[in-house]
Amino acid sequence: MSGPSPAPGGALDPVQRARAWLSRAVEPGNLALWRFVEEEGPAAAATYLQSGAAPPRVQSLVGARAAEDTADADLRRAERLGARLVCPEDPEWPAVPLHSLTLAVADEPVGGPAPDRTQVLVPPLALWVRGEPRLDELVDRSVALVGSRASTAYGEHVAGELAYGLGERGWTTVSGGAYGIDAAAHRGALAAGVPTVAVLACGVDRVYPAAHAALFARVLDDGLLVSEWPPGCAPLRHRFLVRNRLIAGLTRGTVVVEAAARSGAQATAKRAERLGKAVMAVPGPVTSAVSVGCHELLRDTERGATLVASAAHVVDRVGGIGSDLAERPATPTTPHDSLSDVARRVLDACPVRTGVPPERLASVAGCDVLDVLRVLPALELADLVQWTGTGWRLAPATGR
Amino acid sequence: MSGPSPAPGGALDPVQRARAWLSRAVEPGNLALWRFVEEEGPAAAATYLQSGAAPPRVQSLVGARAAEDTADADLRRAERLGARLVCPEDPEWPAVPLHSLTLAVADEPVGGPAPDRTQVLVPPLALWVRGEPRLDELVDRSVALVGSRASTAYGEHVAGELAYGLGERGWTTVSGGAYGIDAAAHRGALAAGVPTVAVLACGVDRVYPAAHAALFARVLDDGLLVSEWPPGCAPLRHRFLVRNRLIAGLTRGTVVVEAAARSGAQATAKRAERLGKAVMAVPGPVTSAVSVGCHELLRDTERGATLVASAAHVVDRVGGIGSDLAERPATPTTPHDSLSDVARRVLDACPVRTGVPPERLASVAGCDVLDVLRVLPALELADLVQWTGTGWRLAPATGR
Repeated sequence: MSGPSPAPGGALDPVQRARAWLSRAVEPGNLALWRFVEEEGPAAAATYLQSGAAPPRVQSLVGARAAEDTADADLRRAERLGARLVCPEDPEWPAVPLHSLTLAVADEPVGGPAPDRTQVLVPPLALWVRGEPRLDELVDRSVALVGSRASTAYGEHVAGELAYGLGERGWTTVSGGAYGIDAAAHRGALAAGVPTVAVLACGVDRVYPAAHAALFARVLDDGLLVSEWPPGCAPLRHRFLVRNRLIAGLTRGTVVVEAAARSGAQATAKRAERLGKAVMAVPGPVTSAVSVGCHELLRDTERGATLVASAAHVVDRVGGIGSDLAERPATPTTPHDSLSDVARRVLDACPVRTGVPPERLASVAGCDVLDVLRVLPALELADLVQWTGTGWRLAPATGR
Repeated sequence: MSGPSPAPGGALDPVQRARAWLSRAVEPGNLALWRFVEEEGPAAAATYLQSGAAPPRVQSLVGARAAEDTADADLRRAERLGARLVCPEDPEWPAVPLHSLTLAVADEPVGGPAPDRTQVLVPPLALWVRGEPRLDELVDRSVALVGSRASTAYGEHVAGELAYGLGERGWTTVSGGAYGIDAAAHRGALAAGVPTVAVLACGVDRVYPAAHAALFARVLDDGLLVSEWPPGCAPLRHRFLVRNRLIAGLTRGTVVVEAAARSGAQATAKRAERLGKAVMAVPGPVTSAVSVGCHELLRDTERGATLVASAAHVVDRVGGIGSDLAERPATPTTPHDSLSDVARRVLDACPVRTGVPPERLASVAGCDVLDVLRVLPALELADLVQWTGTGWRLAPATGR
C-alpha cells in the first residue's frame, strides 16, 4: 500500500496519477469537479482539464494550474516521506464513513450550488496518507475530538481524558493537529498507547504549527497524518474550513470539547450533523468564554447535540446498540433509602437520647400507633433505632 | 391580609381555623386527606377528624393528633410573628401556579396511591406566610433556583448571578433557604434589591440552618418565608422532600445549579417536569462531582431539561412567547466574514511583502484570472490588499 503502485510496464498507475494531478490542480471540496470526475473517470477528467477541453464551469476551476503537472514528482516525494495516495479505487479507501459525503451531495441541485459557497460536503478525490496503519481500519471505529486552539487547562484535561478513555475502549481519536484541544486529544491517545489520526490542512510533510514537530513524529509512530493536499502545500486559511468536513466525514461522531461562540469547532459539528453523524459537546463552566460554543450546541435542540462528560458517554452515543452502553453514575445507597414513608417519619420522630413510647412517636410522626408498632421491628433490625428499656430512641451512629 | 381574620362576632374565621388545625394534625402532601377536605369542606373535614368519624383511611392519618387542638394558638403565634395563614379561599392564594398540582393529582387513581408513597404531587391545604408582600403577586413571575448544599464557589457564583439577573428582569427567585446554592440564590436576589421567597420545611419562625438567621431577616425585609407547617414545627428530614414539590409548584420553572449524582435538587427537577413546568440545568466542569446531577438531567433527553448559562437563557425558557427572548451570543464580525469563497482564496494567496501579478494569484488560489480580477477591487476597498505598482500584496495590519 505504500508509495505509488507501478502499473503494468513499470509506469505509474494512470488512475492514481490522474488523482494526484487533480489534487493539486483544483482546491478540494468542489462539487462540480467531483461530479465531472465521477462521470468521466479520473484519467479522462484530468486529460480534458489539461487540454482545456472540459466544460467551462469546471475548466475555470483549474485556471492557471492547467498547464502545471507535478503529479509524478508529488507521488515520488510522498514515497520518500513514507506516504501514499489513497484513492477511491483502493481497498484502503474508507468508503463506509465517507459514503455520508456522497449522500450529502446527492441532495445538492444538479446545476450545483452557488460558485462562491464554500461549505459543500463533497467527498474527497483522494487522500494523501502518511504512516503505517491502514486508513480504513483506523477510522472504522473513530471519533473526532475538536475544539478551540485557545483552550483552557480544563478543556485540555478533558480532551486528553476522553482520547485516553476512547483508546482504552478500542476507539480511534481523529483530530486536526492544531494547538489546544487538538493537541491534547492526540496526546491523550498517545498516552493510552493507541494510534491517532491527524487530518491536516496542508501537505503531510509540513508541520503546522511548527512547534508540533515532536507531536507529529509521535503520531506517526503508530498513527497517521492525512491530507487532501499534496506534499508541500501550505496551510492556507480557507483550507481549514474545507478540511473540517473531512474530520466530520471520516468519523462516527464529533465531540466539541471547548469552543468559543463562533468557531471552527462549531462549524465541524454542524457538518457532522448534516452528515448524519453524532454531534456531542462537553459542557464547562458557564463563566468560560471557550465553553460558550459547546453550550450553544447543547441549547440548540434542533441540532441535537448530546452532552458528554466521559469517554463512556461518547461510546454510548456512537457505539453499536447494545454493545457499548454507558453505565449510569453510581448512586450511593444507605439503609435509609429502602425505608417506607411511614418508617422514615417514625425514624425522624425518634429522639437522640431519652427513649419515648410508641404513642409519642405516633403523635410526632403524624400516624397511627399501629403503624409505629408495625415499622419499629424493621428499623431496629436495620440498626437505626434501639429500645432503651423504657422507650425508643435513635441508635448511635446511624449515619443520619 | 396579616394575621387571623376575625369572623362576624369577633371569633376566628372557621374555615381558616379548620385549615390551621389540619396543617398541624396531618403531615402535608397526603392525597387522601386533600381529597377528603375537597369533598367535605375544611370545617366539616376537621370536625369529622376531631370526633373520629372520618373514613378509616383518612382517620388513621391523624392518629394521636386528633385529640390535640392548637389552631387558635398557632394563628395567634403567627400574628405575633408578622405571619398569616393563606388559604385557597383567600385572594392571596397563588391559584394559577398551584393549579399544576391539582392537575397532577387528577391523574392519581381514585383509591389513591400506595400509602407508603411519599412523592405525591398533592396541593397544599394552606400556606403559612411570613413577610409583607402578597404571595400570589411575588410568585406570578418566579423561578426556582435549587442545588447542592455542598456547592462549589463556581456554583454559588452562578446561582448569585442568575438570581441577580432574574431580579433585574423582574423575576422572583424562589429557593429553600439551605446552605450552598439556596443561600447564594437568595443573596443574589437581595443584591439586586428585589424580593425573594424562601420555602421552608419547618415553621416560618424557625431558622434552619441556624447560621442563616441574618439571611432570613434580610429575606423578610422585602420578601417572604413560606411553609406548609405551622409555627414551631421542626425541619424533619422527610419534610424536605414534601416541601420540594411546593418549590416546583409555586414557580414557572426550576433551575438546578449544582447537584450531585443523587440529590434533592434532581428530585425537585423531576417534580417540576411532572408538573409541566420548565426544567433547566446549569452545566459545569465535568470534573466536578456536584455538576454530575446537572449533566445527567441534560443528558436525559426524555426529561427535556434545558441547558441555561445565564438569566437571559432562563427567561427565554419560562417567559411568555415573544416577550422575553434571549439574545444570541455576540459573534464578532470582521471584513473577512463577508468575503466570498473566491475572494478568501485570493486573499490567502496574496504575499505579505512583494506584490505579485493576478496570474500568479490565480495559480496559487486555484481559480481563473478573471475571477481574481473580479474580486480584487472589493478586497482593495476593504483595505485587505494593496497595489504596489508592480503587483498585489496584503495590506499592512489587515488583522489576518
